[in-house]
Amino acid sequence: MDLKNKIQTTVDGYFDAFDKGSAEAVVALFAEDATVEDPVGSKVRTGAEGLLKFYSGAMSMQCKITPTGPARIVENEAAFPFHGVVQLPDKVMEFDCIDVMTFNDDGKILTMRAFWGPGNTSYTAK
Amino acid sequence: MDLKNKIQTTVDGYFDAFDKGSAEAVVALFAEDATVEDPVGSKVRTGAEGLLKFYSGAMSMQCKITPTGPARIVENEAAFPFHGVVQLPDKVMEFDCIDVMTFNDDGKILTMRAFWGPGNTSYTAK
Repeated sequence: MDLKNKIQTTVDGYFDAFDKGSAEAVVALFAEDATVEDPVGSKVRTGAEGLLKFYSGAMSMQCKITPTGPARIVENEAAFPFHGVVQLPDKVMEFDCIDVMTFNDDGKILTMRAFWGPGNTSYTAK
Repeated sequence: MDLKNKIQTTVDGYFDAFDKGSAEAVVALFAEDATVEDPVGSKVRTGAEGLLKFYSGAMSMQCKITPTGPARIVENEAAFPFHGVVQLPDKVMEFDCIDVMTFNDDGKILTMRAFWGPGNTSYTAK
């Protein structure tokens, strides 16, 4: 499988892992020593333990994400847009995000940066 | 105007400049010594002259771009998805792209990287 297809498989696996609510399945898509900056500008997380803690937090809020367009894959990088819904204790947060990732030769994620800001969120009371 | 609004104004101006077909209007949105990597992995262009040459090429092919979702603006960066149509001599190329940009304090573009790969283009005979 060429790198483009490996990357597409990883991106598809990322959405599948959220569908399953499995932080372990998300973390399995990352290379060792990968970094996650979500949102851009926040503390960079790294290491299997750090990533598992972060994605377990997302899963505990039943975070669901849906692609809103194709992944743009070029060289060893990808950017893809999606819409997310998160269950907070007293309200529902929706957000529009674009993840930008780099990958190793095996199609594992080396770096992830999540682009979403204050203008990309909305809240509804439960 | 806060930085987020300055960045949004620049992104809006980017689409407006393509609507007008004005390479000069595009280049006016960039800071001095800005860099453009379009697509990701290609030669990085820089300087007003280099950028003007690049965007004049796009305008000569009547490149039109339409947003396909909101700009994700966070800190001094933005990512935004769009669909493009380019008139080649004997065919029409359509492409899905995500531009990732960094900005200075005035909201001028410092760096631009365009994410679109072989899987993001389609062609129709004229």
